[in-house]
Amino acid sequence: MKQVPIGVSARHIHLSKEHIEQLFGAGYDLKPLKPLSQPGQFAAEETVMVTGPKGRFEKVRILGPARGKSQLEVSRTDAFALGMQPPVRESGNIEGTPGIKVTGPQGEVELAEGVIIAARHIHFHTEDAAKWGIVDKQKLTVRVEGERGLTFDNVVARVSDQYAMDMHIDTDEANAAGVQNGDLGVIIG
Amino acid sequence: MKQVPIGVSARHIHLSKEHIEQLFGAGYDLKPLKPLSQPGQFAAEETVMVTGPKGRFEKVRILGPARGKSQLEVSRTDAFALGMQPPVRESGNIEGTPGIKVTGPQGEVELAEGVIIAARHIHFHTEDAAKWGIVDKQKLTVRVEGERGLTFDNVVARVSDQYAMDMHIDTDEANAAGVQNGDLGVIIG
Repeated sequence: MKQVPIGVSARHIHLSKEHIEQLFGAGYDLKPLKPLSQPGQFAAEETVMVTGPKGRFEKVRILGPARGKSQLEVSRTDAFALGMQPPVRESGNIEGTPGIKVTGPQGEVELAEGVIIAARHIHFHTEDAAKWGIVDKQKLTVRVEGERGLTFDNVVARVSDQYAMDMHIDTDEANAAGVQNGDLGVIIG
Repeated sequence: MKQVPIGVSARHIHLSKEHIEQLFGAGYDLKPLKPLSQPGQFAAEETVMVTGPKGRFEKVRILGPARGKSQLEVSRTDAFALGMQPPVRESGNIEGTPGIKVTGPQGEVELAEGVIIAARHIHFHTEDAAKWGIVDKQKLTVRVEGERGLTFDNVVARVSDQYAMDMHIDTDEANAAGVQNGDLGVIIG
């Protein structure tokens, strides 16, 4: 049985080095608060405020380290609260997505693009993927048991020797399925 | 193909006649704003505030007419915002569920119980259910197509000659599946 642990992604933001400096000051480095499931990735101590046309979130966690492009990942529930309709996208694929205002303690950045609802996906280490015959970008079907049990289609496989096995869903998906961090899904197709 | 229209239930409250009078004044009648999919049911013009341990919602729509027991239906996302952990329940089955403070223009009620996350369900008119061989309380499996396509287990059939066919899911479930009011699901088991 192809069991995968599930990690629930709350709304969060990735920032470029340039934007970190605009928001927190020249030469600023994020302070790691706790490591994430993917090697080298961390939740930072720092948060920012994001402001959409209809609403804002005052404390959005920054995930580090700095990335090439800034990107805000929200649930669809969050998007309604902000008054936005971002598309469902894979991380990093932000062309044509809406932007948003980001406010830090030392400044403000108007992102021209980068707001997405993250497509559900599973990180696989290369060896784990090979063992199960799964290739990068493959669309998988994953079943979750329980009172709110459901089966997710279109779960994107992301394979790299930098990854550890973890299925990432957002809070809407987790709440719809009644799952919490560390619960297990089963790849059934 | 057993297609059912989907209705997305945002957070809402049903109130007893007694609670309506405590919140809005003696002899008060709810004013229908718009009819719902189920015959005789309506969204009322009136809203109330609900206050949980961690947060509150200032304008929660009342659905009429008055019921025997008051009941607040929220998504799991809403429940976290309120600071509560209500169970997933069928409507009306509120024994042992948490209560909440409800505030109206003329008064306040401390519900002793009644906060639930509604179990996903399909209303069937008796004749429609019979045609498809579906019985009251049956657990169905319903598939939703699309970018966020998924298959819901444990969808409770509710059969009555007072019902019109409609599948009710909450906003977490709708957002997880990428569906909107009026989209179609297919009963596959």
